[in-house]
Amino acid sequence: MAVRDFKEEHERLKALVEEALLGFLPKEDPKARRLFQSMRYSLEAGGKRIRPVLLLGACLAAGGREEDGLAFACALECIHTYSLIHDDLPSMDDDDLRRGKPTNHKVFGEATAILAGDGLLNGAYEGMLGDIQKSRAEQLLRKVKAAGIIARAAGAEGMVGGQMADIQAEKSLALSEEQGEKQDPLALADYIHRHKTGALIQASLVAGGVLGGGEEDFLKALSDFGEKIGLAFQIADDILDICGETQILGKPVKSDQEKDKLTYPAILGLQEAKNILEKLHDQGRQALCGYESRCGFLLWEAQALAKRTF
Amino acid sequence: MAVRDFKEEHERLKALVEEALLGFLPKEDPKARRLFQSMRYSLEAGGKRIRPVLLLGACLAAGGREEDGLAFACALECIHTYSLIHDDLPSMDDDDLRRGKPTNHKVFGEATAILAGDGLLNGAYEGMLGDIQKSRAEQLLRKVKAAGIIARAAGAEGMVGGQMADIQAEKSLALSEEQGEKQDPLALADYIHRHKTGALIQASLVAGGVLGGGEEDFLKALSDFGEKIGLAFQIADDILDICGETQILGKPVKSDQEKDKLTYPAILGLQEAKNILEKLHDQGRQALCGYESRCGFLLWEAQALAKRTF
Repeated sequence: MAVRDFKEEHERLKALVEEALLGFLPKEDPKARRLFQSMRYSLEAGGKRIRPVLLLGACLAAGGREEDGLAFACALECIHTYSLIHDDLPSMDDDDLRRGKPTNHKVFGEATAILAGDGLLNGAYEGMLGDIQKSRAEQLLRKVKAAGIIARAAGAEGMVGGQMADIQAEKSLALSEEQGEKQDPLALADYIHRHKTGALIQASLVAGGVLGGGEEDFLKALSDFGEKIGLAFQIADDILDICGETQILGKPVKSDQEKDKLTYPAILGLQEAKNILEKLHDQGRQALCGYESRCGFLLWEAQALAKRTF
Repeated sequence: MAVRDFKEEHERLKALVEEALLGFLPKEDPKARRLFQSMRYSLEAGGKRIRPVLLLGACLAAGGREEDGLAFACALECIHTYSLIHDDLPSMDDDDLRRGKPTNHKVFGEATAILAGDGLLNGAYEGMLGDIQKSRAEQLLRKVKAAGIIARAAGAEGMVGGQMADIQAEKSLALSEEQGEKQDPLALADYIHRHKTGALIQASLVAGGVLGGGEEDFLKALSDFGEKIGLAFQIADDILDICGETQILGKPVKSDQEKDKLTYPAILGLQEAKNILEKLHDQGRQALCGYESRCGFLLWEAQALAKRTF
């Protein structure tokens, strides 16, 4: 496929996800209407759908069909969206805006926002389990495995653990200095990025590969690729924030609190962060070495994620 | 079994759950230690383990083995515990005490409490999916079905929806009065109880029955039984709160805010609430009609839950 075709493929997969998301959540109950409004408000707030598109891309690259991955793609987006709602809460990052729109708790209040996050997280598993139950024997085993991969990445030893380390980072560095142990800020930033952001991106690719019936070697390649581009994605985001391109891209300028957060460009300077990003991008390419013919789309996606900073 | 034997069986199953819970959560990561401390603080705060015991009881009654249900029993307790942590938050019920101990956010702060809840909810699915992956073909299908039943009961059309309706109840009643539609408070209380409390108790029984390989008729009986005793359980709790036995039982006195909540005894008076509780208890017994020989333990559990008020 030519580059233009990859862009078309991206739009095609994104559109599939948008459509599937409309029917993915459980049926609305009138007595809890506000909950469903709140869940949909954030789910339909115009996310880039990166994780679901990567999952579908990996599923196709592994030789599967997109319909085998669609419920899981939706589940990933629900999990990602719940994490944004909870991260934005006053007791966490206290953000007023998300993707240029008021954050969930600004519109619906804190209690509803917490419940909307809970509903989306639970809904992700409900949707995957529902899809698994409808599957035939061979697909069933793959789907159970894929759901397990997503669950590990989303939970306390993945994304939730990363968010915990993130909100504690400042205190943790100050404490280690007090105790004369001087923690390496870059090592901590690395841990946070790999868990808070990287884990779910990596899981998108590996779960997609599993759903598509990929062989072990290919799954390992997807895992390595995902590890590199997951970290690269976060570094690219942080570079964009510093370069002030956030407004151009329609993203809100970060709050003061968030500006203090540990990032590669904040610790190493802009140029060194860009060098590392480029290196990670190269390593990601190399991870798929030998699989280029079926991974053109995934390589294009990685390029598109990184090149935002060029 | 004699009554004393049922009590012993209860203690035996509870002890099995306590032991299994210790190894159920994902492995602790030192960089997110506070998260795991917070999750364990609430999980090990001395809950009655009603839902897991009911699941194991139903699994055994259906002819299954307790080891087939143990991971799911732990998952139920994680889901129940996460819901308590989030319900206690300042923006929800704003409770300082739970089971006589400071609530999670009072000890760890709001942000960590929210993440601990997220970690427990996610951990429940991670644990179930891990258990499913280790299962043989026949058990695998049952386990996928059981996890789906639990997910439906826990989510937006179950427990989360019930909590949403609960925190909105006062506003919802006032609004309907303003609009001249006068909503029935008892109908609203009924909805809240069935969703917030009843759904997960009912799911414990049905999922247990599914895990034990119960036939359709028996699963239907368990579902009806669960519906009745789930509602009865909440009414019994609310009667106990009003009777002031909360302190005797070591439970904290409810906050002022919670005293205003919609309950059967608050709406109907103590005696009528007790009458309804007794009626529900009888209906629960009747639902298991024909299955008494294998459901002695479950009937004893139902009696034990209701008789707290006698």
